Amino acid sequence: MQRSAAQIGDVLANIDTPALILDQSAFERNGAALMAAVSGLPIRVRPHAKSHKCPEIARRQVAAGAVGICCQKVSEAEAFVEAGIQNILISNQVVGEKKITRLIAMAQRADLSVCVDHIENARALSAAASAAGLRLGVLIELEVGAMRCGVAPGESALALAREISQMPGLEFLGLQSYHGPAQHLRTHSERRAAIDQAITLTRSTRDLLAKHGMPCRQITGAGTGSFMLEASSHLYTEIQPGSYIFMDADYSRNDWRESGMPIFEQSLFVLASVMSLRDPDHAVVDAGLKASSVDSGMPIVADLTDVRYHKASDEHGVLQRGPRAEKMLLGQKIRLIPGHCDPTVNLYDELIVVREGRVTDIWPILARGALL
Amino acid sequence: MQRSAAQIGDVLANIDTPALILDQSAFERNGAALMAAVSGLPIRVRPHAKSHKCPEIARRQVAAGAVGICCQKVSEAEAFVEAGIQNILISNQVVGEKKITRLIAMAQRADLSVCVDHIENARALSAAASAAGLRLGVLIELEVGAMRCGVAPGESALALAREISQMPGLEFLGLQSYHGPAQHLRTHSERRAAIDQAITLTRSTRDLLAKHGMPCRQITGAGTGSFMLEASSHLYTEIQPGSYIFMDADYSRNDWRESGMPIFEQSLFVLASVMSLRDPDHAVVDAGLKASSVDSGMPIVADLTDVRYHKASDEHGVLQRGPRAEKMLLGQKIRLIPGHCDPTVNLYDELIVVREGRVTDIWPILARGALL
Repeated sequence: MQRSAAQIGDVLANIDTPALILDQSAFERNGAALMAAVSGLPIRVRPHAKSHKCPEIARRQVAAGAVGICCQKVSEAEAFVEAGIQNILISNQVVGEKKITRLIAMAQRADLSVCVDHIENARALSAAASAAGLRLGVLIELEVGAMRCGVAPGESALALAREISQMPGLEFLGLQSYHGPAQHLRTHSERRAAIDQAITLTRSTRDLLAKHGMPCRQITGAGTGSFMLEASSHLYTEIQPGSYIFMDADYSRNDWRESGMPIFEQSLFVLASVMSLRDPDHAVVDAGLKASSVDSGMPIVADLTDVRYHKASDEHGVLQRGPRAEKMLLGQKIRLIPGHCDPTVNLYDELIVVREGRVTDIWPILARGALL
Repeated sequence: MQRSAAQIGDVLANIDTPALILDQSAFERNGAALMAAVSGLPIRVRPHAKSHKCPEIARRQVAAGAVGICCQKVSEAEAFVEAGIQNILISNQVVGEKKITRLIAMAQRADLSVCVDHIENARALSAAASAAGLRLGVLIELEVGAMRCGVAPGESALALAREISQMPGLEFLGLQSYHGPAQHLRTHSERRAAIDQAITLTRSTRDLLAKHGMPCRQITGAGTGSFMLEASSHLYTEIQPGSYIFMDADYSRNDWRESGMPIFEQSLFVLASVMSLRDPDHAVVDAGLKASSVDSGMPIVADLTDVRYHKASDEHGVLQRGPRAEKMLLGQKIRLIPGHCDPTVNLYDELIVVREGRVTDIWPILARGALL
């Protein structure tokens, strides 16, 4: 744990850099916009905590009406349970003896469920849960286009559901159908086509399972790019958006027209300083690869006109100044919009919360680095 | 700080995943190979600690003959001074009042020097150092082709050196000429051309400064891709390689023929588990963007034949199995070679040190996340 970049009451110019800052007003509007957007729909909200890894945020999400949170890792969930969050779906497979042992220990003090997509994993979960005398809720993850985890919809899912329904220690809850890449398709029609396919596959699998006496009480999925589609499907029972509270440069490239999605604002920034200025056209900031993940592209320079973040190395970012840009100053603080919010948040131990230019709070990112 | 992925004595199969593991024998051979390669040359070794952020490694480097270490950040250096490393070059600009205050405080208990490339920054350092009654060693950073920090060689450097030489609280030590991108040029002839140019520019600047009564006692630079060129230049007094102890997938794409460089072995791995296996051709591991930085490309799958790490998302990596690959098993542990070692190390709190398949030690990465 490193020292803090700021103290409560600091103005922006006094925050040490690079620092991860949260525009509290935009963050609050984003949270409210999500709940308002789905308020008339038969859907529960279970935000994904892999984006923020921050119990302070999870508590606010639950207070605003979320049914609980999603986590991706056992150790991530442990940090939230420790902080008092009781209802967690691990929207991922938990494979390996050490992880399963800890999952089952945690399930004795929190309301946990988990995804499965392999019979061997289901057997291992069943053995551990029944040895501990509990029933663990499991959802079968379907592969609905993301080409990542999940069993094929239809007969494969049916076969796995049959096995799980027989296993001691497990309670079959339903399906997870999450299409990650669809979130980042640029137009509404592309996203709609991908999610429509996911909905069709999921619906037919749900119906097949029901026909065989295995109704799905839960069907979960959806992200920040598509959740209105799942929420209005009358199929999904829960949505799992994560990034909507923060947004990022990659999501800003989505075209939201015709989507019916609420417009979320950028609330998350990396605050950087100009640390080298050879000439007015060549400024270097102190935030590189270790301060802003570039997996989805370079950060965008906020606030300044016609200045581009051109190239990142470990600790440096080279800026390019276009003809309409004003001169920059050595030491000048510049807000960057990270290319991808989730892995950027995971680089920091704290979120510096700012309202009207002043630090109002510092929220520990307690599940930062929770890989296990 | 998350829980540990392993205990001393564990075999590889018992390490929880994803985990950052260090092949201790390869690590030790890399360290010895560097010192042997430069043993006959008039050069000091000051390894870059931005790669490992780990005092246990810094102590071993100093014990093997390194004169000290380099750091990139004040907070990074603080972690090493705290751990007993006394001689540190901050091979970077330290800009901003908070950072300078901490730098000067640290300079009162350790042997520190720092790079400058701007007159305003030199003035701020001078004011703080002289107010504290100390003389801070400064090197002027030259821009010798990397297009990042540094003043232009020649007259610009001379003008800055003149100013610095007059400033109270500062001691002009010499030059830093580091060409980062040259490290990753693929052929020896490309690297040689880039470094030859850096050497020429640096030599003429050194001579110009000497002619004006400002001799350079230190000339520092060089990385894992090029250091034999700088070390044999009879110009540089110190080299700063960092990655040589670990290596990574990007460096493995360099062609080392004709370079006269020692061959460093891959010692750093991300240990991952197969966590989803829809069919033999579609395996997913539990190490994604938060476990291995993809800024320089995807990880390489070690040990397995004809298996490729195809796509990373936050917590997942999709593997592709070619025709010559053996079947994979659910839960199987797989070693990955990270695309880029430095930002990957920065994702972990600990290095799991392994020798002959067993965990011999766990080294805290104490400067992980030291961004300030």
